[in-house]
Amino acid sequence: MSCLKHLLLCAVAVCLVGGNFASAAQAQSQPAQPVPTTTREVPARLLPVPDTVSPQMQVIIAQPLSPTWNVVPGTVEEWKARVDKAASGVLAELPKIREALGVSVAPTTLAGVKAFIVTPRVIAPRNRDRVLLHFHGGFRVLYPGESGTREAILLAGLGGFKVISVDYRMPPDFPFPAALDDAVAVYRELLKTTKPKNIGVFGTSAGGSLVLTTMLRIKMENLPMPGAIAPSTPTADLTKTGDSLFTNEMIDNVLVSQDGFVRATITLYANGHDLKDPLVSPVYGDMHGFPPTILTSGTRDLYLSNTVRVHRKLRAAGVEAALQLWEGESHGQWNRDITAPETKEYNHEIARFFDLHLGR
Amino acid sequence: MSCLKHLLLCAVAVCLVGGNFASAAQAQSQPAQPVPTTTREVPARLLPVPDTVSPQMQVIIAQPLSPTWNVVPGTVEEWKARVDKAASGVLAELPKIREALGVSVAPTTLAGVKAFIVTPRVIAPRNRDRVLLHFHGGFRVLYPGESGTREAILLAGLGGFKVISVDYRMPPDFPFPAALDDAVAVYRELLKTTKPKNIGVFGTSAGGSLVLTTMLRIKMENLPMPGAIAPSTPTADLTKTGDSLFTNEMIDNVLVSQDGFVRATITLYANGHDLKDPLVSPVYGDMHGFPPTILTSGTRDLYLSNTVRVHRKLRAAGVEAALQLWEGESHGQWNRDITAPETKEYNHEIARFFDLHLGR
Repeated sequence: MSCLKHLLLCAVAVCLVGGNFASAAQAQSQPAQPVPTTTREVPARLLPVPDTVSPQMQVIIAQPLSPTWNVVPGTVEEWKARVDKAASGVLAELPKIREALGVSVAPTTLAGVKAFIVTPRVIAPRNRDRVLLHFHGGFRVLYPGESGTREAILLAGLGGFKVISVDYRMPPDFPFPAALDDAVAVYRELLKTTKPKNIGVFGTSAGGSLVLTTMLRIKMENLPMPGAIAPSTPTADLTKTGDSLFTNEMIDNVLVSQDGFVRATITLYANGHDLKDPLVSPVYGDMHGFPPTILTSGTRDLYLSNTVRVHRKLRAAGVEAALQLWEGESHGQWNRDITAPETKEYNHEIARFFDLHLGR
Repeated sequence: MSCLKHLLLCAVAVCLVGGNFASAAQAQSQPAQPVPTTTREVPARLLPVPDTVSPQMQVIIAQPLSPTWNVVPGTVEEWKARVDKAASGVLAELPKIREALGVSVAPTTLAGVKAFIVTPRVIAPRNRDRVLLHFHGGFRVLYPGESGTREAILLAGLGGFKVISVDYRMPPDFPFPAALDDAVAVYRELLKTTKPKNIGVFGTSAGGSLVLTTMLRIKMENLPMPGAIAPSTPTADLTKTGDSLFTNEMIDNVLVSQDGFVRATITLYANGHDLKDPLVSPVYGDMHGFPPTILTSGTRDLYLSNTVRVHRKLRAAGVEAALQLWEGESHGQWNRDITAPETKEYNHEIARFFDLHLGR
């Protein structure tokens, strides 16, 4: 087997050098640093598309690795071009989604922060005095303006809630803590008209992390907690920490690795700030007193471990915290296709959790 | 990159041939069957031990792949030798665990089935009229007699419950459905002295699957459901179905793959029976009416997907079902070391769930 091991390690080395792949694995493959005995080689393998998900989800899972995972903008102009391109992709599909789900979207301003009021055709009677606050995802950089409302439209339409989606400021113009300042300002403004227990806060990925950092700031500012929160696959640790960042590297076809574009967005957002500051990486924060929380991830999600770490941390702090996982799915794929049963089920689960825990 | 792809695929092929590795990947690497475009290559990688778990758990995660994962007994005598060896390993550590947790174990017989009464020094007053029923794990073949009581001792000691651990019959002498018959017989007997709502049923791996098939049989026989169940990493699908059987293959250091020893135990247990029969693979059963359920898995667990599939199936059937995951852990490692904080936390979570849902 030692010949085989050698062959596999050679393959790894070729891949790392050829792919400009600056991971911990690369550091460990350099001859000056002996491989610790605790590091294990995992052989290459062929990964079939699971037949344990819907046909729509099989198509999504079958997609190749994102071709832009390691394409890093070099200038502010390149960043803005990337932002524009991603936004226009989403904007093109929004009218059809709004139409299909019977949801209307109107711009507004709350406490000086731009936002959108996202309203379903029918608000369930029990939800009449409730409102959900939404922080969109997108690596802390993507999806400004209306392009950030997609997830809010889905939960408004499938859950029957009124949603306020916050168009928080983002880098390259506005790095940390602008997004957090905006999120907290809108929450504070909302408290003037809505009981805190009647507010639910949700978001995915960077939006999920922003939900958690907003809770930490609410505690710091002695504001009342909302009734419940739903941070999905929160990027709660911006250091490369958490086992699935390694086990699901090159398996998650959305993010692929934390070492390419993801790392660049982290650097851009943190802007020199300590990545272990709980307001940047909320997994390091004190979560005592958090409201009931539902967390979501997928079995192939690069951020599976960080979702699990937040779940354990909440439970250890005595918080009522639920965890749901989606079979075979990479980062955020449970919301990808509004015709997929998984997308409906995901939004119904989040809506049910809010219904269970919010005041009326 | 095509040269690299070739190199990696060669490495896979060498590995498969050299390692007697009869997976779906092997079938797909044979020249007669073209690789479907939806099958993706995952490169080899080096996997570090996560620092996001306790020092005790780091030692467990750092262990190499189980050296016996692909060692398959060829005769009944070889099976029995393997069973004896595994049992003696556990029996050697039991006195120390019983002592540390203040738990006593006494043999008994219920409805003609051998079992053990596992009693903590102090039964919490609220648990006085409650009893937990335990089905041990071990590939449906291992851990007969007292060697099957380890998990029951942990939950009795750490949770303050009286536990009855069933020493169900196993192959090679007693294949399917002997274990299920014994499990249901003991439950039926228990109903003579205990209210169904005051009974909790738990088990890990094969024991977790037996918890689920027992619920299916309880429905078929129109018996009342217990108050709650805790199937941990249930091997709920004995066909090779579920995404993590591929993504976590060669990553889970306990089971490693479903294709070696695991597959042999499945063949031995099923004894020619259809693997898609819900009483063999409960994920194919109708779970409407199941009691509140807490499921457990680990991010490296080969049976992560099957745990998740059971969770989704229960939720779709309207069952109150919780899911907890353990960072970086392979199959069942959350119970491996009684000094690890994860082991205590796991047992406390299960005990809390039973306390929340059982009658008094």
